[in-house]
Amino acid sequence: MTSFADLPLRADLVGRSPYGAPQLHVPVTLNVNENTHPVPDEVRADILRRVGAALDEVNRYPDREFTALREALARYLGHDLSPAQLWAANGSNEVLQQVFQAFGGPGRTLLTFPPTYSMYPNYALTTGTAVVEGRRDDDFRLSPETVVAEIERTRPDLVVLAAPNNPTGTPVGLDAVRAAYDAFEGVLVVDEAYGEFMPADAPSALTLLPGRPRLAVSRTMSKAFAFAGARLGYLAADPAFIDALRLVRLPYHLSSLTQAAALGALDHAPLMLRMVDEIRTQRDRTAAGLEALGYRVWPSWTNFLLFGGVEDPRALWQGLLDRGVLIRDLAIPGALRVSAGTAEETDLFLDAMTSLTPVGAR
Amino acid sequence: MTSFADLPLRADLVGRSPYGAPQLHVPVTLNVNENTHPVPDEVRADILRRVGAALDEVNRYPDREFTALREALARYLGHDLSPAQLWAANGSNEVLQQVFQAFGGPGRTLLTFPPTYSMYPNYALTTGTAVVEGRRDDDFRLSPETVVAEIERTRPDLVVLAAPNNPTGTPVGLDAVRAAYDAFEGVLVVDEAYGEFMPADAPSALTLLPGRPRLAVSRTMSKAFAFAGARLGYLAADPAFIDALRLVRLPYHLSSLTQAAALGALDHAPLMLRMVDEIRTQRDRTAAGLEALGYRVWPSWTNFLLFGGVEDPRALWQGLLDRGVLIRDLAIPGALRVSAGTAEETDLFLDAMTSLTPVGAR
Repeated sequence: MTSFADLPLRADLVGRSPYGAPQLHVPVTLNVNENTHPVPDEVRADILRRVGAALDEVNRYPDREFTALREALARYLGHDLSPAQLWAANGSNEVLQQVFQAFGGPGRTLLTFPPTYSMYPNYALTTGTAVVEGRRDDDFRLSPETVVAEIERTRPDLVVLAAPNNPTGTPVGLDAVRAAYDAFEGVLVVDEAYGEFMPADAPSALTLLPGRPRLAVSRTMSKAFAFAGARLGYLAADPAFIDALRLVRLPYHLSSLTQAAALGALDHAPLMLRMVDEIRTQRDRTAAGLEALGYRVWPSWTNFLLFGGVEDPRALWQGLLDRGVLIRDLAIPGALRVSAGTAEETDLFLDAMTSLTPVGAR
Repeated sequence: MTSFADLPLRADLVGRSPYGAPQLHVPVTLNVNENTHPVPDEVRADILRRVGAALDEVNRYPDREFTALREALARYLGHDLSPAQLWAANGSNEVLQQVFQAFGGPGRTLLTFPPTYSMYPNYALTTGTAVVEGRRDDDFRLSPETVVAEIERTRPDLVVLAAPNNPTGTPVGLDAVRAAYDAFEGVLVVDEAYGEFMPADAPSALTLLPGRPRLAVSRTMSKAFAFAGARLGYLAADPAFIDALRLVRLPYHLSSLTQAAALGALDHAPLMLRMVDEIRTQRDRTAAGLEALGYRVWPSWTNFLLFGGVEDPRALWQGLLDRGVLIRDLAIPGALRVSAGTAEETDLFLDAMTSLTPVGAR
């Protein structure tokens, strides 16, 4: 049997393992921050109608510039964005890989602030970009002073800030984003994958785009639009920044079916965003329940919660799984992460947590 | 207004232009080797049913290992391939980029044999792989001796052979593939994007996979399955080779809608392959028509033809476009490329060619 040793694998890949959040089938799946609400029937019907129309011409290559989709994304985001400032790909994974292909690469360095989204170093790996890690303030916060000090210390070419952050759920202030941008000459990506779950009055980094051509703000339809299966990530930036991505994108990277499905979902944005309100409600109920059990819960602007004070995270994770509830162990000492689910899923999670938390033990 | 000069673009991208086959809307579009036959109604209905089912769970991430699709692709290809030997992505563009990410990169070199598919150097560019060009024999042929001599001269880490070749349509013998594999220690990719259009008795490079772990054979559903809009490329290789791709693929790169649509089309493979027969018929009729007009036509194992003896390719290309027929000028001296279309499109193309070719001029 052939092994990696028999293949001329790139040296920096030797010994690596593929990304692997477990894909287990259990009744309550709250491990990968999915939106656990299915797409509403009327939205589903509209998407299917549009996909059917796309199938009539599926023998042809898709619109390489996905013009209609970029127009719809610009309308959805607002902030006077034009379609020329929008870009999309198969998940924000691909969007961010394209950013690294255009602005990273050999001889260039990414600065990231762990604990944060585990894929950032992977984009660096596949594009030959070096990685340096910055430190955070207490409680996973990121002050303007700390961001600037870490940029000055590490002199990166690329900085990615998850705002709010994953897996901690904690916010990042726009003052830190502004300070980061001014502290270096490289590309700053603010990953707002969970942007729709922020408080309604919290401003997006999209408001900082004018006059900042090295800033990009990435988003996804996976969470707020319950569209993880459809893979549609996108990004807003200066038109010249978008043109740079066009140099490295694979031609026709976005299928006509994906374009059609995303257009269908965006047409129903107000309905989908009401679902976001419900998820925030369940998130806050989950936080209150965990606190009542004596756990510490970090403030969350996302559709998930990091909770601490867990004596044995692996044992608690397994105990929940044995009760049909899958959450995520990200190797943060004493902490686990749980996605916000439906009201019923929240009940089941909190019931399981209650049964796994000895009375008086906390 | 911001320009590239204001952005920290990677040095090797400066001065580049994006891939850009024109996307013009004309009555007869024969420029990008699409299958000009729409997907049959019964196949379309089945695909839509499957996409509808996928939409019921589109709020969840897709099966990261696309197990059902790999099983279906293995069944379709035959040759005793197992699902562990199959891989797929959003177009063979992404499949091949993943191969370059795993086995190319800085310090490694791609050998390609122009004129060939214009994207191969692009995968090299975005992955930091160097490119060297090999020479072909006369009439775009590639003998075992020439392939081996060029490999020994250039010492590549990766070789890609388009077989049959694009844009020439010409075949590559399995003797050349075998000789290439034995001539170096790197990865050999045989790109059979047009494999279904080969003569029925011509063996595929898939027959060479046993005992050759550094060989990969790529295919696409864009052409034979009339599925260019759905973006489904795939590859067969040793299971260890597939595992290497898993190290560099972006998690969940293949949407649940794409997986569902591809499964629907593969379920109707015999019907789709009857369409391939019709396209070959029109290709051969086009070739005969061009030869009757005095043009030289290279032998084609694909769904397109390269024809030469064109005095002014740009003028002929424009003359055809003025008559509503779009073909492709690939800057091969005295030659143009035309995709095989429906019977009606073939008539319109040949009529236009007749009117643009002065009697007695040839």
